[in-house]
Amino acid sequence: MKITGTFIDEITHDIPSQNWGPDEWAADFKVMRSIGIDTVILIRSGYRDQAVFNSWALRKHRPMLPARQNLAELFLDLAGQNNMKLLWGIYDPGDWEIDGRQALDINREFMNEVHEHFAGHEAFAGWYLTFELSRHDPQHVELVLDSGRHAKKLTPDLPTMISPYISGKKAPPGMKPIPRSQHEDEWRKIFQKIKECVDIVAFQDGHVDFLEAPEYLVLHSRLAREAGIACWSNVESFDRDMPIKFPPIDWRKLEYKIDVAREAGVDKLITFEFSHFMSPNSVLPAARNLFNRYCERFKLNIEDPNSNRHGQT
Amino acid sequence: MKITGTFIDEITHDIPSQNWGPDEWAADFKVMRSIGIDTVILIRSGYRDQAVFNSWALRKHRPMLPARQNLAELFLDLAGQNNMKLLWGIYDPGDWEIDGRQALDINREFMNEVHEHFAGHEAFAGWYLTFELSRHDPQHVELVLDSGRHAKKLTPDLPTMISPYISGKKAPPGMKPIPRSQHEDEWRKIFQKIKECVDIVAFQDGHVDFLEAPEYLVLHSRLAREAGIACWSNVESFDRDMPIKFPPIDWRKLEYKIDVAREAGVDKLITFEFSHFMSPNSVLPAARNLFNRYCERFKLNIEDPNSNRHGQT
Amino acid sequence: MKITGTFIDEITHDIPSQNWGPDEWAADFKVMRSIGIDTVILIRSGYRDQAVFNSWALRKHRPMLPARQNLAELFLDLAGQNNMKLLWGIYDPGDWEIDGRQALDINREFMNEVHEHFAGHEAFAGWYLTFELSRHDPQHVELVLDSGRHAKKLTPDLPTMISPYISGKKAPPGMKPIPRSQHEDEWRKIFQKIKECVDIVAFQDGHVDFLEAPEYLVLHSRLAREAGIACWSNVESFDRDMPIKFPPIDWRKLEYKIDVAREAGVDKLITFEFSHFMSPNSVLPAARNLFNRYCERFKLNIEDPNSNRHGQT
Repeated sequence: MKITGTFIDEITHDIPSQNWGPDEWAADFKVMRSIGIDTVILIRSGYRDQAVFNSWALRKHRPMLPARQNLAELFLDLAGQNNMKLLWGIYDPGDWEIDGRQALDINREFMNEVHEHFAGHEAFAGWYLTFELSRHDPQHVELVLDSGRHAKKLTPDLPTMISPYISGKKAPPGMKPIPRSQHEDEWRKIFQKIKECVDIVAFQDGHVDFLEAPEYLVLHSRLAREAGIACWSNVESFDRDMPIKFPPIDWRKLEYKIDVAREAGVDKLITFEFSHFMSPNSVLPAARNLFNRYCERFKLNIEDPNSNRHGQT
Repeated sequence: MKITGTFIDEITHDIPSQNWGPDEWAADFKVMRSIGIDTVILIRSGYRDQAVFNSWALRKHRPMLPARQNLAELFLDLAGQNNMKLLWGIYDPGDWEIDGRQALDINREFMNEVHEHFAGHEAFAGWYLTFELSRHDPQHVELVLDSGRHAKKLTPDLPTMISPYISGKKAPPGMKPIPRSQHEDEWRKIFQKIKECVDIVAFQDGHVDFLEAPEYLVLHSRLAREAGIACWSNVESFDRDMPIKFPPIDWRKLEYKIDVAREAGVDKLITFEFSHFMSPNSVLPAARNLFNRYCERFKLNIEDPNSNRHGQT
Repeated sequence: MKITGTFIDEITHDIPSQNWGPDEWAADFKVMRSIGIDTVILIRSGYRDQAVFNSWALRKHRPMLPARQNLAELFLDLAGQNNMKLLWGIYDPGDWEIDGRQALDINREFMNEVHEHFAGHEAFAGWYLTFELSRHDPQHVELVLDSGRHAKKLTPDLPTMISPYISGKKAPPGMKPIPRSQHEDEWRKIFQKIKECVDIVAFQDGHVDFLEAPEYLVLHSRLAREAGIACWSNVESFDRDMPIKFPPIDWRKLEYKIDVAREAGVDKLITFEFSHFMSPNSVLPAARNLFNRYCERFKLNIEDPNSNRHGQT
């Protein structure tokens, strides 16, 4: 079971830019397709003052930096050319504690604008609701529900997706780890609420110890099935265990997480994310090596154009 | 309006060494010249126990590590060969709170030594006063004044330069952000003091939100003009917004900052700094891509010798 | 005096993986041999839930991640093929405060297993006792003693090694710096205890100011000689002075540390570690440049297969 989807993180808040232009992106989509990736997920199309295109809806609500390159069009075109589906990540105001209500209001108008301009594109295949849930916080869940309902109103036949995280041992700073039983209780409730308008849930797999991952994956599979929601796994290809935030993950860890996700019966594997952390085109040479290890494991004969001899990238 | 100056940061306190030898430096100066850089600014010629040459003045005051390679000569020679001017950054004792008085005493003797040995070089074009001002702290201003006066005594006809920072939203740890009105008040006073012996002020552009940058740039231009001082902008080519301190900046941010600086009417654009963050020779591949984006924008036909095909670096 | 030994850090806790496979490792051992490295030291063969091979002894004590590639065999074979000795680093439970007793119990059984399976290999040349001492803490010293005695019981004729650190100005977070006189007192006591079963002590050289290094190196040499223990220096090839933890060290610092170690009369120089921080095969291009500087200094004519022209790596 291979990774067949990846996030695209070009409006980023913590991963440094690779400074790719259209040619570099075209090369990377080609490699993605060659290893079987059929789905790309824009992690967000706007964040604070940055967006993938010059949106009037966002500019109405707040000052925005210019977007000289229309990345929305670029990514949709490249997805189309490579027979991939693109799930469109909505706008993230940056701080949902403060901006919860505002996030909803902005996003409704923004999603209308996106729908009008981009939903007709052959690659436009649904919505990624960019708010990352973890706990059963009614206000946070409401953010997802509200944007999910709006997505269903705009495009009743297209799927919506979320990628929550576990408040586990490696929870982000400020989040208290909770036991698995509590995670189960809270997510049973969340799933019952969100099933109204969320079709796919892809938990991030990096906030628990590796040895705990199998039980969480089985749990998520079961809860999702109970709620009639598809269960994907977001097999993170960056390493959360290092002082540098973040390098490409150790291949041994990635391989382990792929295997236990398959054994847990998840429906599809995606990753955050291919272009920085496991692409032969990445600015991070360890990512190029990770790509080689991945191809060896799955017997993919991809020629790495960066290599001029064995063991060199 | 292109970037026509760059710092050189080879006595560094927070940017890892690229471990270049004379050949690598020669290659990089050649690239600099090819994109129109006419000025290099040594950010400092000594820091704590390290210096660009074996200085007797520094050794008199404190134990120093050996400098086996005379980088002062190397950089002056390379600047001369490429028809560039070099502004010489003075000694930084590392902690000016403690060492304020000492910093002055050491630097007077050190500058005498530098003057005697290097000021006759064709590329030696003035002094960079390495102390980074931000607030109207009389003691800090005095440090700049004292070294500036000494520079003028040694070389009355050569310019002196400083590169202050804004105590803005992204101020360094330990610095309290202040409102723009207060920044204006304090810098009006500072400019009136330093105009006696400072010819060029190049504010670092990275400590405020991008959307605030235009107003700060206009303000600095105006205050500098009032004081009869040249106003450059230090268009930082590293990214202050990432957990990794520091990667090359996102091209979209750099392009935006170049444009708003031009619109504010500054006299010249320089960067901190070319060799790590936007050179095709950098150890950071994202810098090589940043170079390509920059050359595309300004229609510079520079062949990147690292590239063997489109989209690869 | 060249560096003739290096750690191998493939079960790591703070250095990101390069994601090398057997071919990349083979290439790197070849380069090591070509510059005169005759000793490799496995820094640890297990850490928490990871190990270099599927050990029944470890699995008996705690759940472990699978080790699909037997790195123990790989490294021993590559060492053998390149006429190198391998010192085997034992198991590190991750937190010796909590797990002191357990660390001893696990390691005795684990060392038995290692002895049975790997000690017959031509390259197996002794043990590295992976616990890093710094202060005269009787419990910590006991950990080293206990594992050292067990090593001597298993292989009376093979050496044992430790690599302690100085609680100096750059001591790790949580460690209080102590004066050199106290370091001397405590280590005189430690040496007298450990000489029973420790043959080689290689202090890490990175926790003091560079200018203090000579006095510490002379001190360690003298104390080791008094105790009849060989004194190596662990010339760290990563930089402890940067915000990024960790980049390759500045060549000027490495050269200085090599020279002062030689002058202090240490018996051998090793480094932590070659493959990430000073190899031409490293994912870190600054390491490739460090390799070039090192080869220039020692007039080693190694062709760097990554280079296609001067100044490019």
